[in-house]
Amino acid sequence: MRISELSEATGVPVPTVKYYLREGLLMPGTRTASNQADYGPDHAHRLRLIRVLRDVGRLGIERIRPVLAGLDDGSLPTHRLLGMVAYALAPPAEQGPVAADLALARADVDRFVDELGWVVNDGAPARRALADALVSLRRLGRDVGPEVFVPYAKAAGRIAASEFRTGPPADAPRDEQVEWVVVGTVVFESALRALLRMAQEHQSALRSP
Amino acid sequence: MRISELSEATGVPVPTVKYYLREGLLMPGTRTASNQADYGPDHAHRLRLIRVLRDVGRLGIERIRPVLAGLDDGSLPTHRLLGMVAYALAPPAEQGPVAADLALARADVDRFVDELGWVVNDGAPARRALADALVSLRRLGRDVGPEVFVPYAKAAGRIAASEFRTGPPADAPRDEQVEWVVVGTVVFESALRALLRMAQEHQSALRSP
Repeated sequence: MRISELSEATGVPVPTVKYYLREGLLMPGTRTASNQADYGPDHAHRLRLIRVLRDVGRLGIERIRPVLAGLDDGSLPTHRLLGMVAYALAPPAEQGPVAADLALARADVDRFVDELGWVVNDGAPARRALADALVSLRRLGRDVGPEVFVPYAKAAGRIAASEFRTGPPADAPRDEQVEWVVVGTVVFESALRALLRMAQEHQSALRSP
Repeated sequence: MRISELSEATGVPVPTVKYYLREGLLMPGTRTASNQADYGPDHAHRLRLIRVLRDVGRLGIERIRPVLAGLDDGSLPTHRLLGMVAYALAPPAEQGPVAADLALARADVDRFVDELGWVVNDGAPARRALADALVSLRRLGRDVGPEVFVPYAKAAGRIAASEFRTGPPADAPRDEQVEWVVVGTVVFESALRALLRMAQEHQSALRSP
């Protein structure tokens, strides 16, 4: 199909499609004339994926780029690739020096993850994110340890296990596996946040006069 | 304490403290001289809360403002106030016309929430957010209904119930209740996201050769 048809099929305006082409997020079409190219279903699918990352994941181009580069890179082993993509989707860590209370919270988190028996890379951005959450609680005057996160860890463990039961098998095409990680991280995380807010509203309604 | 001491106690630079004062996010201190004011523990606490909303919640000033206004407003009934604060913390909805597939997804979500038996306002931003997630899955070619969210809804229900068990009682001071909603929404949501990513990495490690 032509670029105008691609635009119509995906709801992405032509200038935006051209921008993604220039930025290398969308692979070029097959040239059919000096100023015309042909696009197929792969292009439409890629455009829809970019829009999910942008609209649901609220990621900027600079954070979308490495994810798509991972999808297009045939050289990495699949497990390494999936890890790379998951880390690329993590919120960027705070910059700047690490305060003493953050170092302490990080040690608490590392111990907590060990106790859960979870196999998580030392460099996983989520370790720092959890330490940030613990520091925030403490700076607000709450005298809490990482045990305060136990109900969340249990829920997260259940969800991750159910995701892997319904996900593609380990020998599925790597594109399919990577997209599944992307969608799981961005779309289902957004769904979980929405459901948690509704469940909190429901609990609040139950308790209000 | 003086503004320099307030800055030191909270780690917020003096120019930033002055900015929050000008913007009305931080209540003024007690004037002690023509160009000097005295600040107390309430000011330090408010500054730490602003930093949590900014650093952990990644909220801009314009989204922090109504939350703090809610905290300072003594006129709303507590239940209304808590709902207002929770909605103010929700990610802003996409603007623009509602596509036909989104309207359909929204009807699916409304039915799903009914079936869960949850009491959730029709105008809750989370309904739209969940419909957005469902539309994203469908636009990526997955033929799914809202039932795909069941494991997430179960987890969310458990978490919300446990939060309300450990939260302040219904007759606690309203400041305490509002702050608890703020912290629950921002800090624990961030913790849940971090834990989910670690649980996913763990599951992935379990299955990789």
